[in-house]
Order: sequence, then C-alpha cells, then structure tokens
Amino acid sequence: MKSDDMSSGIDRRALVSGLALLPALSGTLLSASAQAQTTSDVLASWNDGLAKQVIIDFVRATTEQGRPTYVPPEDRIATFDQDGTLWVEHPIYSQVVYCLDRVPAVVEQDPRLKDVEPFKTVLSGNREAIAKLSLHDLEKILFATLTGMSVEDFESEAKKWLTSAKHARWSRPYTELIYQPMVEVMQYLRSNGFKTYIVTGGGQDFVRVYSQQVYGIPPEQVVGTAGATKYGYQKDGKPFLTKEPKLLLNDNDAGKPEGIHLMIGRRPRVAFGNSTGDREMLEYTGAGNGARLMMLVLHDDAKREYAYGPAQGLPDTKVGAFTQELFDEAKKAGWIVVSMKNDWKRIFKFDQNT
Amino acid sequence: MKSDDMSSGIDRRALVSGLALLPALSGTLLSASAQAQTTSDVLASWNDGLAKQVIIDFVRATTEQGRPTYVPPEDRIATFDQDGTLWVEHPIYSQVVYCLDRVPAVVEQDPRLKDVEPFKTVLSGNREAIAKLSLHDLEKILFATLTGMSVEDFESEAKKWLTSAKHARWSRPYTELIYQPMVEVMQYLRSNGFKTYIVTGGGQDFVRVYSQQVYGIPPEQVVGTAGATKYGYQKDGKPFLTKEPKLLLNDNDAGKPEGIHLMIGRRPRVAFGNSTGDREMLEYTGAGNGARLMMLVLHDDAKREYAYGPAQGLPDTKVGAFTQELFDEAKKAGWIVVSMKNDWKRIFKFDQNT
Repeated sequence: MKSDDMSSGIDRRALVSGLALLPALSGTLLSASAQAQTTSDVLASWNDGLAKQVIIDFVRATTEQGRPTYVPPEDRIATFDQDGTLWVEHPIYSQVVYCLDRVPAVVEQDPRLKDVEPFKTVLSGNREAIAKLSLHDLEKILFATLTGMSVEDFESEAKKWLTSAKHARWSRPYTELIYQPMVEVMQYLRSNGFKTYIVTGGGQDFVRVYSQQVYGIPPEQVVGTAGATKYGYQKDGKPFLTKEPKLLLNDNDAGKPEGIHLMIGRRPRVAFGNSTGDREMLEYTGAGNGARLMMLVLHDDAKREYAYGPAQGLPDTKVGAFTQELFDEAKKAGWIVVSMKNDWKRIFKFDQNT
Repeated sequence: MKSDDMSSGIDRRALVSGLALLPALSGTLLSASAQAQTTSDVLASWNDGLAKQVIIDFVRATTEQGRPTYVPPEDRIATFDQDGTLWVEHPIYSQVVYCLDRVPAVVEQDPRLKDVEPFKTVLSGNREAIAKLSLHDLEKILFATLTGMSVEDFESEAKKWLTSAKHARWSRPYTELIYQPMVEVMQYLRSNGFKTYIVTGGGQDFVRVYSQQVYGIPPEQVVGTAGATKYGYQKDGKPFLTKEPKLLLNDNDAGKPEGIHLMIGRRPRVAFGNSTGDREMLEYTGAGNGARLMMLVLHDDAKREYAYGPAQGLPDTKVGAFTQELFDEAKKAGWIVVSMKNDWKRIFKFDQNT
C-alpha cells in the first residue's frame, strides 16, 4: 500500500483503525491482496490507499466461496445515503431548491398564500431572508410543495425541474453532480452480487424519479423520508393516489435503521454516509455478525467541491454536518473516513483531472 | 381451448371477458398461441383452460421483443396477496393462530393480563368464545403478541412456531399448505424476468420470516401490514430495533395500492388476489397503460380445500370474503376469476392427484 497517497489532513489513525472491521481477514491475506490489487482498474476514480483497498478486500472477503467471511448473495445488501454521499448537498439540498422553486406555482393555485409566511418571504426572492427561515417554516414549504397532488403529477413536475434546474456553481443539472467514485463503488458492488439501496433523508418519491437513470438504482431500492398516500377515484372512475401531508417515515438518524427494517427487512452488509444523520445506519450495519463495511465521506476539498465538518477543524455547517463526535465514533468503531481530497482522483464524471 | 375443462359452477362470462385485459393482442395471435401452448409443461398443476392460457399469453405478450405489448424488464412487477391466494386462510388466518398461541407466553411475562379480557378468554381455550372475539379484542391480542420485543426476538419466536404448529385439517405445517399452481405462476413469471412481490394484509415482519424459503420471495419483496420500530441501545451499547404498537400501514383494501407505492414505488403489471381486500390492488394495477394481468382465486372446492364466497352462492365467510359485488366488478373489468375446482389440477404439492 502506498502510504504517501494517504491523507495528511485527516487523522490517519481513523483510517488505519478501519482495518478492524475485517476481523476475519488475516493480516497476511490483507497485505498480499493489497499488493496485488492497488493497480486494478476497479474503482478507477479512487487514489490508491487504504479506503480503496478496504473496499476491494471487503468484496473479495464476502464473495469468494470458501472464505469464512463469505456472504451468500441474498444477504448482500448495501445502503448509501444520498445527499453529500452520492451527490452534492451544498450550499443547500437539491430537493429544498426544488420546493422553493415550486412555491410560485403553489401560490398561483392558492393565491391566499401570497401574503402568508413563509411563502411571502420565498416569493420576495430575498436570499438572506430565505436562508434564515426556520425549520418549521421549511416544513410548511415542503408540505405545500410535495403533497396535495397525485403521485403522477408530482413525478412529472419533479422530472421537468430536474432537466431544467442548474446548480449555480457548476451551471449543470443537479443529476450531473454525482460523485464518480461513489458511482464506481455501487457498480463494483452490484457486479459482485450486492443489491444497492439509497437510504436518504430526502423524499423517497423525489429520489425515485431519477434514481434508476442517475445511479442505476430502481425506485423500489430507494428508502427515503416518506409520506402517506390516499387512494381515491377520478370522476371517470379511474383510481389514483394522492400525496398526503402525513409523515410515515422520517428517514434521518434513528429513522434510517427503522426505514431499512421497514423497507428492506434485513441488516445491510455495507453502509456509506457522510453526516451525523447517517450515524445510526452505520451503527446498525456494524452491529451485525460477520464482515461489514462502514464508510463516511468527509468533505475536505473546498477546491474541487466543498469543505465542511465541523470535524477536524473544517468549517461548521447546517447542511450535512460531520461532527467531531461522529469522527471519534468512526475511529473507535473502525469505520473508514474517506477524504474527498486525498482518496478521490476525481469528483465528477466531467472532471478532466483523471 | 377445451371448453369442457371450464367451470360450470362459476359464470363463464367472467372468464371470457378476461380476454379484454389484453387489448393489444390480436384475436389471431391469441387463438394461435392458445392451440400451441395448452399442452405446455409450464404451469403443470393448472388444467388447460382460459385461466392458464391467459397467463401464458400475457407473459409472451410482455416479454417477446418487438411486440407492441412488450414490457421492459425493470417494469415487470407482479404482486400477490398471500392469505387465500398463495396459502390456506381457513378456518382462520395462520398469523392469528400464531398470535393466539403466543398469549400464554405474553401472560407469563405480564401476569396482570391473566384476568383481563380478551386474554382471559384466549387462556380459557374455549373455542366458541374465542371465535366470538371482536375485531377490537383481536387487535389487542395482535399488539400484545407482535410488538414490544426486538425484531430478532420476534423473528426467532415466529420461526420456532412455524416449524412446530400444524393445521388441524391436514396435520401439516402451515408452510406446506401453499398452492402449488400459484407457486408455478410465480416461478414462471420470475423465469420471465418479473420481480414477484407479496402484498399481504398479514404482518410484514411475520411473512418475511418464511417468504424466501416458502415462496422464493426475499424479505425486501414482502409488503404487508407494518408497524413502526424504535431504534435503541442495549446496556452493552449494541443497537437494536423494538417493534412498537404503532401502525404505519394497514395493507388491506386501499392500503394495498398505498403500500405498493410506499414500498415498491411503481404500478404492478400483474396482480393476484382472492378477496374484497384485494379489490383496490387489482383496480390500481389495471388502471395503468399497456398489458396488465389481474386474477382472483375463487375458493369453490370444499373437497380439496374450502368453499366460500359469498359470490356465486358459495357460503359466506368472515375470513377472505369474495363478494358478489367483487365478482361483478371482475366481470366488468375483465379480471380472470380462477376456479380452484376447475382450473387447478392439484392444490398442494403433496396432493397425489396429478
């Protein structure tokens, strides 16, 4: 393993302790395969280093017949947080931008909202004021823009937005701002018989609109924050489902393992996240027997993407915080902390620096 | 097609109108393939007849490239009710038997319940009194026996029961009382790229315990009545999920399409049911564009299994009622009504009459 590829910015002990997650692998085996595989074409957007190596070793350990760590195909479940783990979440979650963009249409349908907060502030276009909206205000906007329509109408609106809206920094659709190294991890796992799931705090229905096309993950493998729907009939007798303002699953924090149990019904073998909202998912994954792989993406690359923590002295944030407490837990539990700056050769598919 | 194989007990118009569900199939095509395939080895436990033929024609129409009715693999979703559609539900749902059998253990843990109804009645063993328990009483028993423990403890208890409990009529485990013709339909669909799901009013966690082994359906493809779980930590810090007495999804009636949207996120191409609780699932399935297959199993075979409706003059029942209203809707909508008596060569795998 080339140690000069390793991060100097983040605590190397956290990375090294990650080896603890493969207790059944003998030291000999690990170093032998490390030498053999760091030059592999697999995970081409990853720099050689511990993070890449642990992923490759984990896949070998769980898929090669006869290994004590072998996992039968039906148990190969891998879960991935989305915002900040699979795609850009800064300066603000894409779905929140969608909801803010939808406010004018909602007000047009119900003009009384024009002078009612928080809709009034959103309509003003005053970015500073919008950024200061409370969580409660934000919830009002989410309910107003994500519920009260048929599931088909929602899908068609979201699709339209996704093809037209662009991230201000890159002037590209949000769906292009996915992390190429993570796409490769998902492909690599799938090609080794793992079923990949998104487990997101974002809206389940929202992510399902593009998950197949963008990540190769079908809608039924997206677990997210989910509301109730209500079955009813149109005037012509045709049945349809209406999105109701009733929360069934808040798929953040403890809601992630709860959502995994509800929607998947088995404990993952692999879990990737990037923030405190993923802590319980990684804990739950790690609490199972046998080989498990838990990883956290640390945004420490302001040049190519963003830098935020507040772990390791990185700037604090309200969007996708990675606290020092989480960093310490990762270190203790043997979860691998991935440095975007050091572990990823490129961030996006459109990056030229490969 | 041999018309003498058809049911005389049920209205043949209902069967014939089932052809309407394949609007894009030309009459020529249908009769040509009907002649070619009724002798096929596929669906070996089905008698030759309309029901079997419609299944085969549907699969050909949706999987052969170039057909206007072709369905891409990712859209091949097939949903099956369980109780009365895949396995025996009379005289009482297996899971209710499980819950009643669990009452002594629950009372042992909380002796105060011994003199409290409905537990007192269940402990008395008085079958007549137990049969008269109200729905509200039954709910109390379900909550007491299905919640308040970790998901692992529940799974292990349910597994134990499934290997030991036997159905009084056949003296066999409940998991052997599955309908062989339906097992063949699911295998046939899967071998043609369909993803098979159970969509049951029964408990999601209960059915997931045996779905893989019994039906070849993995836990993540079981949608059922589901309660919340709560994430917590044992004294040693190990995380676990507790089953909470809070209903998230009542997967009956309108709850079935709602549950399908929540758990799968797309409209099925195929839906099988047997009772009024499946009506909305079939309606929702049928309301999509393109080729769809909707079927209802009618229990009209008291000799080999049970006979109940009350449709078509069959005896009325509180367990899995198939009303005349549903029968009429099936006729009108072009859903196929499967006669167990006439369409199924054998009911169970252990039947000798093949």
